[in-house]
Amino acid sequence: MSIGTGTSTHIIMRLQLDVEVFSFGEIASCISAGGGDIIGVDVISSSRTQSVRDITVNVHGVKQRELISELLPKLKGVKVLQISDRTFLMHIGGKIETALKTKIKNREDLARVYTPGVANVCTAIADEPEKAYSLTIKRNTVAVISDGTAVLGLGNIGPSAAMPVMEGKAMLFKQLANVDSFPICLDTQDTEEIIRTVKAIAPAFGGINLEDISAPRCFEIEERLRQELDIPVFHDDQHGTAVVLLAGLLNALRITNKKIEDIKVVFTGIGAAGIACTKILLSAGVRNIIGIDRQGAIHRDVHYENPHWNAYAQMTNPDNLKGSLSEVIVEADVFIGVSAPGILKVEDVISMAKDPIVFAMANPQPEIDPEIAEPYVRVLATGRSDFPNQINNVLCFPGIFRGALDCRAREINEEMKVAAAQAIASVVTDEELSESYIIPSVFNDKVVERVREAVVKAANQTGVARKEPRV
Amino acid sequence: MSIGTGTSTHIIMRLQLDVEVFSFGEIASCISAGGGDIIGVDVISSSRTQSVRDITVNVHGVKQRELISELLPKLKGVKVLQISDRTFLMHIGGKIETALKTKIKNREDLARVYTPGVANVCTAIADEPEKAYSLTIKRNTVAVISDGTAVLGLGNIGPSAAMPVMEGKAMLFKQLANVDSFPICLDTQDTEEIIRTVKAIAPAFGGINLEDISAPRCFEIEERLRQELDIPVFHDDQHGTAVVLLAGLLNALRITNKKIEDIKVVFTGIGAAGIACTKILLSAGVRNIIGIDRQGAIHRDVHYENPHWNAYAQMTNPDNLKGSLSEVIVEADVFIGVSAPGILKVEDVISMAKDPIVFAMANPQPEIDPEIAEPYVRVLATGRSDFPNQINNVLCFPGIFRGALDCRAREINEEMKVAAAQAIASVVTDEELSESYIIPSVFNDKVVERVREAVVKAANQTGVARKEPRV
Repeated sequence: MSIGTGTSTHIIMRLQLDVEVFSFGEIASCISAGGGDIIGVDVISSSRTQSVRDITVNVHGVKQRELISELLPKLKGVKVLQISDRTFLMHIGGKIETALKTKIKNREDLARVYTPGVANVCTAIADEPEKAYSLTIKRNTVAVISDGTAVLGLGNIGPSAAMPVMEGKAMLFKQLANVDSFPICLDTQDTEEIIRTVKAIAPAFGGINLEDISAPRCFEIEERLRQELDIPVFHDDQHGTAVVLLAGLLNALRITNKKIEDIKVVFTGIGAAGIACTKILLSAGVRNIIGIDRQGAIHRDVHYENPHWNAYAQMTNPDNLKGSLSEVIVEADVFIGVSAPGILKVEDVISMAKDPIVFAMANPQPEIDPEIAEPYVRVLATGRSDFPNQINNVLCFPGIFRGALDCRAREINEEMKVAAAQAIASVVTDEELSESYIIPSVFNDKVVERVREAVVKAANQTGVARKEPRV
Repeated sequence: MSIGTGTSTHIIMRLQLDVEVFSFGEIASCISAGGGDIIGVDVISSSRTQSVRDITVNVHGVKQRELISELLPKLKGVKVLQISDRTFLMHIGGKIETALKTKIKNREDLARVYTPGVANVCTAIADEPEKAYSLTIKRNTVAVISDGTAVLGLGNIGPSAAMPVMEGKAMLFKQLANVDSFPICLDTQDTEEIIRTVKAIAPAFGGINLEDISAPRCFEIEERLRQELDIPVFHDDQHGTAVVLLAGLLNALRITNKKIEDIKVVFTGIGAAGIACTKILLSAGVRNIIGIDRQGAIHRDVHYENPHWNAYAQMTNPDNLKGSLSEVIVEADVFIGVSAPGILKVEDVISMAKDPIVFAMANPQPEIDPEIAEPYVRVLATGRSDFPNQINNVLCFPGIFRGALDCRAREINEEMKVAAAQAIASVVTDEELSESYIIPSVFNDKVVERVREAVVKAANQTGVARKEPRV
């Protein structure tokens, strides 16, 4: 998962006020000076001398929160008892729990779900292993697995600190697609050990969602697990981003009336996500992609130390262009960045072909400031929720796993990913489609069902489905 | 977990009946002849010529079910459309699911539980790892882990077939003690690999419940994990059985008015459960225990190939007795079997001291037929639910983990287990206590709370608690 920014958060400050001394006006000014907006005031207790109140304040970042926390106690008659952050409050004790599908009401129920009755169920699975899909949680359960090496924009923060992201993901799986999932954060960063561990715990699961594992280890881990397990393995940072990017590009091309096979695409950031994005574009019919990394365009006349770049050069850059981003981007139809803030200049955008399409997905700061770019582009998308057209993985993973589980797909292949992207794009109707609306909202309830249907169909067509799903 | 038997089950037979030909009397006779009892009849659809009905039938085993399935289709005008087993019906799609603690209602919620807000929570844990206990599911979540090598009485049936037991355990954890848990069945039976895997997935969990792992590997796996992890590790087959056995013994001694330090105990079956049971009895004050295995009493004058038996000889058999079960059991106060059906003879029981106490826990068939033993014993307990005094692990594991999690115990030590046993025993009041009621029901809602309190207290006294629990 990649990080977004710019979303404000609420903090709740519990203040003890000396009734004879304090001034609410001072408090309000102070919060305002710190950059916050008062959202609400609740009186918790009140006496002739003292009043305790919860002030809910909207702040836009940690700095504002800290500033307000410093300023308030300096006011006369104000004592700060506690500052709670709504985000933290929502995390107390974790965000998911186990639920029973049926309550054990009596000894008879107990004898069915546990010993001795359960023995018959165990025997049935031992005799016919496929029955694990009908008689255990396997058919609806996905493991969300991370080693904590590339969490959001935070980097290698380790397995415990990665848990809140994986729990959040488990929530989204359940709420959006009714997929049960469980977060597993690994206390190892060794490629072979991770592969062994995931294989060892696989029997309970119908699918594996890899998450926030750093490159280049993520490539080998995913590839090996795909080969060695018979359930779908999907590294969301690579393929989730790729699917949603393609969805956005398909709709951007609807607006600019360009054909996918004719466009010239310039790509910056040839890491895990960049390579996956490039592959899906090639699968979808794009012919001319030029990848740019720190040394400039990736081409076939040098040997790179990074083996992935040599492979990248083979499948891209048909004209074997060389040079910097500014040199290569001339007359390009599309810029796609999963790289670093600020590397795309206004001049670069101006040099692009008519109706430039820019996907500036670096997080938290895009490759070009959206407000600066805006006058020069036709369609602009970012990874941020505070601008239109957010490329958000949440649009992909719930539906793609829903579909894969429902048809008991052996894997999630390229055709299924392209189908998922087309399905996401299709949710935006011709009437709705506009420069600022190429991607549906994550709360659009058509998305999961459309993606599911498309994925099941593609799985059947490519022979990886092992079951007819219920309609 | 050890298997029980003898509990009947319901099957639901959907019959298509030719209205002009069939006779309900014939159907009833046929079911009765097959050994079943009709519990209910539901008309599903009805026309002038045909009627479809669901007949719910109580049967006592697979043979009766098969007999009825064979006999019914031979009746005139009867077609069997489907036979469903309630046990199997309760397992369709598995028995547990993921639940969200709070629903994601809007974009603001999403920005808190997932990106970008979640990043602040991740950072807080990265800065202060202890916060994983307050900000993730860790503090209330136990992994139920098996490799499927010793499942019930079924033996080595593998990880997929073991899942229904582990899911059942997860249900019991949740329903009885509000402990969240997740079943992990391992696709490896290699000791080192299991240890590595459990350590690798440990960060999400506040405790590890090992289950149905065969001896002697279970000893090393548990011991190593206890040393190498800082969360409680508990092999239920060993210690759960031991705790509940001790609870039963304490109450049996209340009835016979014997002191624990004076009794002579003869033990058959010196495997994983037997050794754990012996250890807890020694911890609780028993001085004279003689273990018997196939070669007879385990004593100190030979060297055994099985290293656990040499250790066993060192801590038991103070008089260094030799000989067969029949020779050693003379004047014993207590017989405890976790061994094989039928090895305890009536003559053996008759040769015991006054008021014999017999725990015949072999499953599914006890060491002595309870009906044969009954006239000669004072107190009799088995592993079966169809006789009084069932020694059932369900009495122990929910409460012992509830306590361990609540005080954030580093481990579950011998003192905590003995305290748990005393707590279970204490639920049976002096007024209630009788030869046929030494152990409370698994549905007695005092059990978990008493065990929890006792475990927390013992953890504090032995210095393994890391937190004051909320009262």
